[in-house]
Amino acid sequence: MYGNRLVFEEINRDLGLMFRYSWSNSDAYGFVRQAEMRNVSDAAVSIEILDGIRNVLPSGVGRRFQLEFSTLVDGYKRTETDIRGRRGAYLVSGSLALAQGESADWLVVAEVEQDASRVRALMRDVAAPGIKDRVLADIASGTARLMRIVGETDGLQATADEPSVWRHFANTLFNAMRGGIPDHGYLVSRDDLGAYLGKTNSAVRARHAALLDALPASLRREDLMKWVQAVGDVDLERLAAEYLPLSFSRRHGDPSWPWNSFSIRLKDDQGQPMLNYRGNWRDIFQNWEALALSYPDFVEAMLFKFADSSTVDGYNPYRVLREGYEWELLDVEDDWANIGYGGDHQVIYLLRLLEVADRYRPGSLVPLLTRKVFTFADVPYRIRPYEDLLRDPRDTIDFDQAVNDAALERVRRIGSDGKAVLDADGALLRANLTEKLLIVALSKLSNFVPGGGIWMNTQRPEWNDANNALVGNGVSMVTLYYVRRYLWFLHGQLKASGVDEVEVSVPVAEFLRAVASAFESHLPVGKDAGADGERKALLDALGTAGAQYRASVYEPAGRGGHTTVTTTQLRAFISDVLRHADHTIAGNRREDGLYHSYNIMQVSPGGISVEHLTEMLEGQVAVLSCGLLGATEAADLLDALRASALYRADQNSYILYPDRDLPHFLDKNIVSEEDVGGSALLTAMLERGDARIVSRDVDGGIHFNPAFRNANYLDEALAALDEGDDGSLAAEDRSRVLNIYENVFEHASFTGRSETFYKYEGLGSIYWHMVSKLLLAVDEARLGALQSGASEAVVERLERHYAKIREGIGVHKSPAEYGAVPTDPYSHTPSFAGVQQPGMTGQVKQDLITRASEMGVVVKGGIIRFEPRIVRQQEFLETPASLTYVDLDGEVHTLALETGAMGFTLCQVPVVLHRGGAAGIVVSRRTWRITFGGLPSTGPTRRQSSSAPATFLASTSTSGLPTDSRHRLGCGHACTAGHPAPSSPRRGLISRNLVAVVGVPASR
Amino acid sequence: MYGNRLVFEEINRDLGLMFRYSWSNSDAYGFVRQAEMRNVSDAAVSIEILDGIRNVLPSGVGRRFQLEFSTLVDGYKRTETDIRGRRGAYLVSGSLALAQGESADWLVVAEVEQDASRVRALMRDVAAPGIKDRVLADIASGTARLMRIVGETDGLQATADEPSVWRHFANTLFNAMRGGIPDHGYLVSRDDLGAYLGKTNSAVRARHAALLDALPASLRREDLMKWVQAVGDVDLERLAAEYLPLSFSRRHGDPSWPWNSFSIRLKDDQGQPMLNYRGNWRDIFQNWEALALSYPDFVEAMLFKFADSSTVDGYNPYRVLREGYEWELLDVEDDWANIGYGGDHQVIYLLRLLEVADRYRPGSLVPLLTRKVFTFADVPYRIRPYEDLLRDPRDTIDFDQAVNDAALERVRRIGSDGKAVLDADGALLRANLTEKLLIVALSKLSNFVPGGGIWMNTQRPEWNDANNALVGNGVSMVTLYYVRRYLWFLHGQLKASGVDEVEVSVPVAEFLRAVASAFESHLPVGKDAGADGERKALLDALGTAGAQYRASVYEPAGRGGHTTVTTTQLRAFISDVLRHADHTIAGNRREDGLYHSYNIMQVSPGGISVEHLTEMLEGQVAVLSCGLLGATEAADLLDALRASALYRADQNSYILYPDRDLPHFLDKNIVSEEDVGGSALLTAMLERGDARIVSRDVDGGIHFNPAFRNANYLDEALAALDEGDDGSLAAEDRSRVLNIYENVFEHASFTGRSETFYKYEGLGSIYWHMVSKLLLAVDEARLGALQSGASEAVVERLERHYAKIREGIGVHKSPAEYGAVPTDPYSHTPSFAGVQQPGMTGQVKQDLITRASEMGVVVKGGIIRFEPRIVRQQEFLETPASLTYVDLDGEVHTLALETGAMGFTLCQVPVVLHRGGAAGIVVSRRTWRITFGGLPSTGPTRRQSSSAPATFLASTSTSGLPTDSRHRLGCGHACTAGHPAPSSPRRGLISRNLVAVVGVPASR
Repeated sequence: MYGNRLVFEEINRDLGLMFRYSWSNSDAYGFVRQAEMRNVSDAAVSIEILDGIRNVLPSGVGRRFQLEFSTLVDGYKRTETDIRGRRGAYLVSGSLALAQGESADWLVVAEVEQDASRVRALMRDVAAPGIKDRVLADIASGTARLMRIVGETDGLQATADEPSVWRHFANTLFNAMRGGIPDHGYLVSRDDLGAYLGKTNSAVRARHAALLDALPASLRREDLMKWVQAVGDVDLERLAAEYLPLSFSRRHGDPSWPWNSFSIRLKDDQGQPMLNYRGNWRDIFQNWEALALSYPDFVEAMLFKFADSSTVDGYNPYRVLREGYEWELLDVEDDWANIGYGGDHQVIYLLRLLEVADRYRPGSLVPLLTRKVFTFADVPYRIRPYEDLLRDPRDTIDFDQAVNDAALERVRRIGSDGKAVLDADGALLRANLTEKLLIVALSKLSNFVPGGGIWMNTQRPEWNDANNALVGNGVSMVTLYYVRRYLWFLHGQLKASGVDEVEVSVPVAEFLRAVASAFESHLPVGKDAGADGERKALLDALGTAGAQYRASVYEPAGRGGHTTVTTTQLRAFISDVLRHADHTIAGNRREDGLYHSYNIMQVSPGGISVEHLTEMLEGQVAVLSCGLLGATEAADLLDALRASALYRADQNSYILYPDRDLPHFLDKNIVSEEDVGGSALLTAMLERGDARIVSRDVDGGIHFNPAFRNANYLDEALAALDEGDDGSLAAEDRSRVLNIYENVFEHASFTGRSETFYKYEGLGSIYWHMVSKLLLAVDEARLGALQSGASEAVVERLERHYAKIREGIGVHKSPAEYGAVPTDPYSHTPSFAGVQQPGMTGQVKQDLITRASEMGVVVKGGIIRFEPRIVRQQEFLETPASLTYVDLDGEVHTLALETGAMGFTLCQVPVVLHRGGAAGIVVSRRTWRITFGGLPSTGPTRRQSSSAPATFLASTSTSGLPTDSRHRLGCGHACTAGHPAPSSPRRGLISRNLVAVVGVPASR
Repeated sequence: MYGNRLVFEEINRDLGLMFRYSWSNSDAYGFVRQAEMRNVSDAAVSIEILDGIRNVLPSGVGRRFQLEFSTLVDGYKRTETDIRGRRGAYLVSGSLALAQGESADWLVVAEVEQDASRVRALMRDVAAPGIKDRVLADIASGTARLMRIVGETDGLQATADEPSVWRHFANTLFNAMRGGIPDHGYLVSRDDLGAYLGKTNSAVRARHAALLDALPASLRREDLMKWVQAVGDVDLERLAAEYLPLSFSRRHGDPSWPWNSFSIRLKDDQGQPMLNYRGNWRDIFQNWEALALSYPDFVEAMLFKFADSSTVDGYNPYRVLREGYEWELLDVEDDWANIGYGGDHQVIYLLRLLEVADRYRPGSLVPLLTRKVFTFADVPYRIRPYEDLLRDPRDTIDFDQAVNDAALERVRRIGSDGKAVLDADGALLRANLTEKLLIVALSKLSNFVPGGGIWMNTQRPEWNDANNALVGNGVSMVTLYYVRRYLWFLHGQLKASGVDEVEVSVPVAEFLRAVASAFESHLPVGKDAGADGERKALLDALGTAGAQYRASVYEPAGRGGHTTVTTTQLRAFISDVLRHADHTIAGNRREDGLYHSYNIMQVSPGGISVEHLTEMLEGQVAVLSCGLLGATEAADLLDALRASALYRADQNSYILYPDRDLPHFLDKNIVSEEDVGGSALLTAMLERGDARIVSRDVDGGIHFNPAFRNANYLDEALAALDEGDDGSLAAEDRSRVLNIYENVFEHASFTGRSETFYKYEGLGSIYWHMVSKLLLAVDEARLGALQSGASEAVVERLERHYAKIREGIGVHKSPAEYGAVPTDPYSHTPSFAGVQQPGMTGQVKQDLITRASEMGVVVKGGIIRFEPRIVRQQEFLETPASLTYVDLDGEVHTLALETGAMGFTLCQVPVVLHRGGAAGIVVSRRTWRITFGGLPSTGPTRRQSSSAPATFLASTSTSGLPTDSRHRLGCGHACTAGHPAPSSPRRGLISRNLVAVVGVPASR
């Protein structure tokens, strides 16, 4: 079903023929189309066939050129049959006679960019006997490689629910295609590392060239990091820690957007395998989160990448590359170019990676909290002073060309590290993880609007592109919900760390002091209008603190100095902030039990008012995750959500915000007689038929000049009147007319795509990524409820919601209902059509995480537990089957599964769940290779394999695993070259070549 | 048949219905589709109809965005029926019952960019009775306006040959759409002139603001120029002389090329009529040549525009605008951006405008020869020194960013005049016409390759885009042919001028002296290889002279000083140059009687060799025009052309160069064993299988690395070997391997599109512009033969060629043979299809000129003669008809024509040819308006008209018209406000509202 093939099948009853086409990519032969034709009639059939390729493009014609100038391109075409100046075709024709039930098949094979030598070789190869077999064998070998990629990221499962199994396969594949996968597990190639260092910081590479050369050609990441520690160069340490030997990644995003052209490059120009990844910041880290569940030892690298590419003012550049990162430039020629920062991705993506680190490698963050190893991205954006943000919150960032140019000049000299921020002495500015995490929190808190959320004033929308126009006057409760969870996590880390004080830079300490003081000296402010003044007073204090901090750190001279803060201070600060945040969150509970997602703020001399927007799905997902809601509250919220306008019954799922009918063209841009009457200027101009500002139509309706695309245009037109006869009237009525304009168009509360768009995140459309985020949030709420000892009744309420949301996601929908084959994830379902855009969705990452949960896997404190409450009983096999999996040597194995079992892998270790019997874990191994109680100190090299049968060796209960599991989990992929002997049979769960068999109680 | 409508008609026999659709553009209602359905069966028919518009695009979606992102755009669509997120349609359906022969018709009308007021007004209008009539009336009024545009440029004719009449209509329309037409004849709007001065030179406008304001709102160009003379400001004079009040122009060129997006803008953003023109240099001047035949008084403006936008080094910028001109910038982002200069357009287009000025306004050039009024375009291209051109003739121009930026800064300060060159004192550098013409000639002559032609070394191909890759090693005989004609014309002008000496700048005088000395001190050099050394010696002298001149004038300090040269010196210089040129031309006669068009030169230490390329049509056109060939030689050449591989029998016309089969992919890039054996480097690398330079295929064939796109890539690869083990071998064999490469690929003689392209100017394609250039050249040869007293036999040979070439152009071809309706001109006819691209061809200009000749019109020395030798007898009417024409007031009239007559206009003056009887001219007038023997001193204002019948008043013979006809011809359009009394009845031919009737002898 999967593999590198697409299949199409149809039966033509009139012709009495079944047609079957499949498309594959062959490494050696190029694009292959297999055709099969079978006589399904009750008589013999004779057929004339014409098949082949049309419109052969000349070499070197780019996509854009072909799109725009296809007729011109035609003039250059020559197909060597010989067709000149026209769209050439290669067609073959023939006659076939098929007896009843007989079939015929053939291949059409085509390749591009072949030179003369290759063509000659192909001609000879094609002429030799057995070419069809060679083509098919090459496709099979490619398919096997693809299976291996999926298997190496735990994408192969075997259960009775085939749609779920294949959906999981697809999710795994697409997640890998976005974020990439490690090329050789935890093995690092010395040469690739050297090349990487050369491009990131050639000076570091040069300093350690001899040492690097002396490294083995291939070594485990763990051994690399030990070596790095021994060398003692902080930059080498940072770059090595950041190094991710990923392959199979492509630039992220939906290819229908203009900035998302991409290809997956696995080989360089010389045909050599190459390692690379690149993605939009807002996408790549989420796919890495799912990847980290299969490769937990790499989470440190992801965190380093994250931290090193964040800015001194608390944001992040647009795009992440294997070597460094990129920010967007001002480009007046490009309509899509824009500068600015998004915000909440940063908080939640960072937090989720931190949580993975903590769950899989407990304690691993502690040394980083105080280790001054991280750098900053020197993004040349300069957020303006607080007063400027208030004045025009949509135009808030200046581009510092000199900073930009200086950074690029440094890149030319030393590599991508040239983009890092320098301190006053010209050295790289460094910080520990605590400071990094604090800066993110403080930058958000400096935009805290009490009662409203976090002010979005950095020229880019937050996650939800549906509301892309909200930036400016919008305040995000979503961000506040995530900030709450983030701060609480930080609180817990600090508490558990045993650290008493941490070093931070003087400007950050000062920023912290000012923000803390602002929160201390103000009472929590509610959402009511009476509090507008207090609201503004607190925001003024916070915003001014932020501006002062930025003013310091935007100048190298202001970045100097360091001081310490105690963890006690920090924890007290967090507690104080949460008092304010929780007050605002509580105030944003709607009467229907949902929570507000985004609000609009309006600044006036009297203060700042907050208006609520419509209910949105995103806010429910975020508030469920924020840690504030109890189990019953969570279940109530989910009930309310089901009853809300966000529920779309025909798809049994949720839209992002209520669908609605937008006003028609003639119902817009209508100025009331009353408003006109109140303006002497408009009255006078209308009377004399001067249409520069407003005009009256034949039916008497009054409209603003349609040339005003926004209030700035109107303002310019009013300013132009100043010089004419209407000068004094125009000056007098300026703000009155601007107010009328805003009342007519409500630009301040214009949410963007959600008011103009009908696909993707548009009106009436289900955006599946968010639905799967909801599913994950419910899963977390469910686990939280279990942990907090909630009643069985409320746990079951949450579990029922989980099941219903999963059902809505549609793995078991009919193709007619889903709109496509439901084993593929799709981006969205518009109101008027089936699912759109296969694979192009962050949904895959969410579903990979919840799929592990559905298999009963719970990882916390470095311990894997099997918690089978939501293991789906219908997935236990009704007949014997087998699990195909890829072991740590990259070898493919098949494991027989009996009736009542199901199989999957965890870090490539096969796990078999059994229905019924007592809960328990049985760990088995291959007897020939491992002496139980102690692995050989040097194991077999990668690619060795054995077909020896597995035998059961030990069993244990589902609880009480040893607490030191970092090593066990982490070593999964790294132990191909050698492995310390495990101290207990239970370690075997995550050791190489072992098979774990887990008993699951019979269905509740 | 024409007008602003496109019509499609078909009969569906199965349905028994005739369908007729026509598309029109209505000013008031937008796009109109008229549908008609007629029952052509022999019974009643009932029909269900569904008709309307599909895929309505939202406002503001650009062409490129729709092309690339149509699916994304769909997501934003909302059609107010309401369809959301999909391609909306407005469809109406209905049932019709049509009796036999009955028909039904309806309109579909659509408009874009309507605001609410306009929609309301339209809704009311549509609801009112008679809307269909109003729409049709609006279309009719638009059609009438279009007819007027065509009529005002002499596009309306009435003969028995309707296809020729409508082809002429189309030619006129398309010529106007390219070059534009005067908006109100010779009338100049004071306000538009003021706006123009403000944008070209705000200082000039400011200096004369009061005087400008005092001008009448509208005045004749002639009166404007008198006023300008009186003011006495040389810049005002220049700008006023350059001023062309054109409308209806668009950027030139084929819209399938990426740089040619255009629209014809007749109104500005406020809906006000606007005057504008813009075009590529190489296109706009040719269309102006045809325009000048209807508006001869504007030829001076065209010449000023031409001269003022040429450079100090003798070239011209890429694009001409109403205000100034534009040069191309270096833009690494744009694959199509390129800097450089083309060459021979400049010579022949300038020459043809000069010839028109001389023929229509004899003596008008004389004052300009010595008047230092012209300026120079400060194009920031810097052609390198001569030695550099020799070294790499494809990379010869540097872009001087500082000069560019300074010019643009001056433009910001004062307007488009800021792009003019300054002298050492910062004042505008000025020159008289003699100096201007000399610079063009000298710049070409400094690249004269004896025996070969003019070296093309300024990074752009000459006219014939087919050979676009020839620039570099190519030398153009075509340019030399035109330079010959140009110099001879200059010689004649100087001789007839009565001027003894002219002032020129010191650098130009020095340039002249050096070039003259080079020609004097060398004998004419033939084309044989033995002369390679002499050839190089002369080119060295010429090229060095050019380089020294450029070195002077590229620096402001070097531009200073002036001196005089005598016209005797100049004429002697020209005679001496022609001795060399004619020797080279004679040597380029092929054995088959054709002449070479382009050659290839190769520089070696021993000299410069010249190799001939294949025969090409362009060279025959140019040599026919160059003035060297006698009538018999011309006729012989045309015979040879007919017998050559350039003749394409199926279309009875000529291709640009012989069609041929290009080698197949596997026949290219083959290195001989012998060549490899001669290189120790290649032998060694091949032996060890090192494929960086060459590789051997499975069949033993040897190929260069396909990554080498040209020799530079190979050279880089060889250089890279220098650092390796092959270092010494690579250094030793470098030039040997490069020679092998050049032998394999023959890049030096690669002609470009003519070897890769199958449409437009590609292989096997007829490029109609060139065929019509041939027709015009034959017409000129024919007239030359008559003038030189050639024998009747040879004149008739030329006339037969004229007729055959005209026949091949295809006005009377069947639509099947032509590939479209033959009354439309098309760009080209590929080998495999009918004509392509209606109207997009410079052919229209050539055909307008020859069409006048076909009507017997000959203008020379300011005299119109009727020379009826090639008047086509079949065009005389067989039944009475009428000529519609537009008079000088813009009024449409109809003139009755009897059997045996035909009608057309000359400068809007109707002319009627009569078959049979004695040769003669009868001039008639409208009796009510003009007292014969003297026009009223103030005539009626524009737009007045009369329906009074014309009566005959006088007659004269076809010869012996008075010699002072400048005024007569020139005043045609200018005399709307007032006119001096003509001194003789014969002046009436070109006076307003007169009708000329010309007798033509019976068919020979």
